[in-house]
Amino acid sequence: MTLGAAAAMVTVDDVRRAYARIRDSVFHSPCSRSDTFSQLCGNQIFLKLENLQITGAYKERGALNKILELTPEELGHGLIAASAGNHAQAVSYHATKRGIPAQIVMPLATALNKVMATRRFGGEVVLHGANYDESCDEAKRRATEMNLTFIHAFDDDAIIAGQGTLGIELLSQIPDVDVVVVPIGGGGLIGGMACALKEINPRIQVIGVQTSRLPSMKAAIDAGHLVTLPMASTLADGIAVRRAGERTMPMVQKYVDEIVTVEEEEIASAILLLLEREKTVAEGAGAATVAALVHDKIHCKGKRIAAVISGGNIDVSILSRIIERGLAKDGRLIRLRIYLEDYPGALHTLTGVLAEHRANIVETTYDRKFGVDFGNTAIDLTLETRGTEHVKILLEALAKSGYHFERIR
Amino acid sequence: MTLGAAAAMVTVDDVRRAYARIRDSVFHSPCSRSDTFSQLCGNQIFLKLENLQITGAYKERGALNKILELTPEELGHGLIAASAGNHAQAVSYHATKRGIPAQIVMPLATALNKVMATRRFGGEVVLHGANYDESCDEAKRRATEMNLTFIHAFDDDAIIAGQGTLGIELLSQIPDVDVVVVPIGGGGLIGGMACALKEINPRIQVIGVQTSRLPSMKAAIDAGHLVTLPMASTLADGIAVRRAGERTMPMVQKYVDEIVTVEEEEIASAILLLLEREKTVAEGAGAATVAALVHDKIHCKGKRIAAVISGGNIDVSILSRIIERGLAKDGRLIRLRIYLEDYPGALHTLTGVLAEHRANIVETTYDRKFGVDFGNTAIDLTLETRGTEHVKILLEALAKSGYHFERIR
Repeated sequence: MTLGAAAAMVTVDDVRRAYARIRDSVFHSPCSRSDTFSQLCGNQIFLKLENLQITGAYKERGALNKILELTPEELGHGLIAASAGNHAQAVSYHATKRGIPAQIVMPLATALNKVMATRRFGGEVVLHGANYDESCDEAKRRATEMNLTFIHAFDDDAIIAGQGTLGIELLSQIPDVDVVVVPIGGGGLIGGMACALKEINPRIQVIGVQTSRLPSMKAAIDAGHLVTLPMASTLADGIAVRRAGERTMPMVQKYVDEIVTVEEEEIASAILLLLEREKTVAEGAGAATVAALVHDKIHCKGKRIAAVISGGNIDVSILSRIIERGLAKDGRLIRLRIYLEDYPGALHTLTGVLAEHRANIVETTYDRKFGVDFGNTAIDLTLETRGTEHVKILLEALAKSGYHFERIR
Repeated sequence: MTLGAAAAMVTVDDVRRAYARIRDSVFHSPCSRSDTFSQLCGNQIFLKLENLQITGAYKERGALNKILELTPEELGHGLIAASAGNHAQAVSYHATKRGIPAQIVMPLATALNKVMATRRFGGEVVLHGANYDESCDEAKRRATEMNLTFIHAFDDDAIIAGQGTLGIELLSQIPDVDVVVVPIGGGGLIGGMACALKEINPRIQVIGVQTSRLPSMKAAIDAGHLVTLPMASTLADGIAVRRAGERTMPMVQKYVDEIVTVEEEEIASAILLLLEREKTVAEGAGAATVAALVHDKIHCKGKRIAAVISGGNIDVSILSRIIERGLAKDGRLIRLRIYLEDYPGALHTLTGVLAEHRANIVETTYDRKFGVDFGNTAIDLTLETRGTEHVKILLEALAKSGYHFERIR
């Protein structure tokens, strides 16, 4: 890296100016101590709830700062952005609020609720391309062809400075924070935040979290240059970026202490913990930081740690699947295959045992044809229980009543 | 009612003293403007998020105030309370924090996660009785027998004054509020809040919300005396109280402007809206206020309205069911019965059409025996779609490919 390139990086003063510009137009999100996570981690954990931003994610900070830095001429042309999610809603909302037309190119397969949210905030949605990269190419093509002003989701200094405002806001809430944990997709958020935090207090540790499915910034830092990873699907779609940014990577190199990765299961369980214990809805990328904390990826004790919950825009059908899987893991939803003798009333006797022990039948499949001997049948039952203890009592009761059964995992 | 009884009611000064006592030990929950609900209702809507309290509900205010008002002798005996939910966790948490032993009597069928939460906060859980009334009788019996100090969930002046602190806190956040909407169970919360709000500013309207399944306070006010309603089940289990309180009813009579009721479907849809749009988890009782606002039970426009989201302790399995039903209502989950000719490959051809239109198959039941003519079969498919538009395209494609089908509701 040349001195010239280093000198051109975003500075803490850029971030300060950005904050002065945007602070009255974004939500000052709470950053409260979490009893649950403090106990689970042996640290004082604070959650910065950017999922409560108006459009459900921190992305507004960068998008708005960028919009406010554009010249009247650039704004006059209208804006265009590509995004499958939070950046789309952020640009749509803040452009529309200022009377500026905005086109948002989204991949063809984008979930309808995300398309609807982006439209609701006022932007014009263009569905194009099989994935983000194809949408992005189309957005750039349109920007040139229609003379629109393109707003990148992360690799732009005004965006980086805007996202960095989260660092300044956080310091105003937890001045004596020791460690700040931040999710990494393209690197805009952590680049800006780490710059602000470290320049103000170099003793603050800044730790980045990526999904192990797409650790593009970690790969870039390890290799010493940008790398493009193959596409992969992840629950943390908000940080599913195949290639880190040219503007963001040097900032991460300079300011970030460590990058850790989390697995899909860890993200899912963090989403469920936030839902059940903190009563807050986080998307995969937003829960990645607490996933790292809860699953011991970050090695410290007794520290004051702030974790950024970057967004809450998760499809509720995915949320419902995470809940069901979580219930199954806790034994609150179990599936049994129970073998019955093939005579009238056999099922009635069985359901009597289940009713007596207050197990709620959710689903049944009754099979008299396959996998069982003649004269016997098998029934698969999905049951709601009150948890592991209840399951134990229930299985003992079934055994005592003479049933043969298997638990299906 | 005699003058003596009226004079003995909780006063705004009691509430002020309670607030001074508890304010440093409860969470100062946010009360932010909601874009979503403001647009939906044509008012400025603010949500007071008491679901973010440490134990997930406002009940801590009353429980803590009561504990702090007890004499050292009363505390020395140990505490006992009856509750299936939030009061249990509140007493458990604040007693334990002060080193005071607390027994909590909960109905036998209480969901294990609520039992676990109450235990986690340190209280000793006693499972007894088929419902709240039976648990309450047992708690009173034990209080006498073991010389424990009984803490009622709502019908106690220290509890009422404690819950009322929410009104003072709310006024500090939204000084110019016009209308405050509050859920009603036993009446402790609205009694205390209405007293504080009306005594400080008589122009503030206070509106109570009950579930139409158990409108015990409304029935009492209409009848002019307390009435006991038959048991009923409701999503809003936190306000499922069969008989209002003797101490609370006169306060509601004096201070509350109106009581409205909401239906189960309205509560479910409010829970889903809060989850999807506000990224916050509300239990049924907590969502009842926004259910009333969204479903036009409260007739005003252009006002500044604060709605109390009183708690977030909802069982995630119920949340998952609410999501699934909401998806079905939006057409994002549909069930079709499709008639097929009975030849090898017929199903493969059908799944080809579905795959081409990116409908995700969640569940199938394939029936070759019943309800169909010989030579034909029927398959029931549950499909995930991107919503109403997507469903329309999909059904047209099936019709065009020559399939006969029905949509199952």
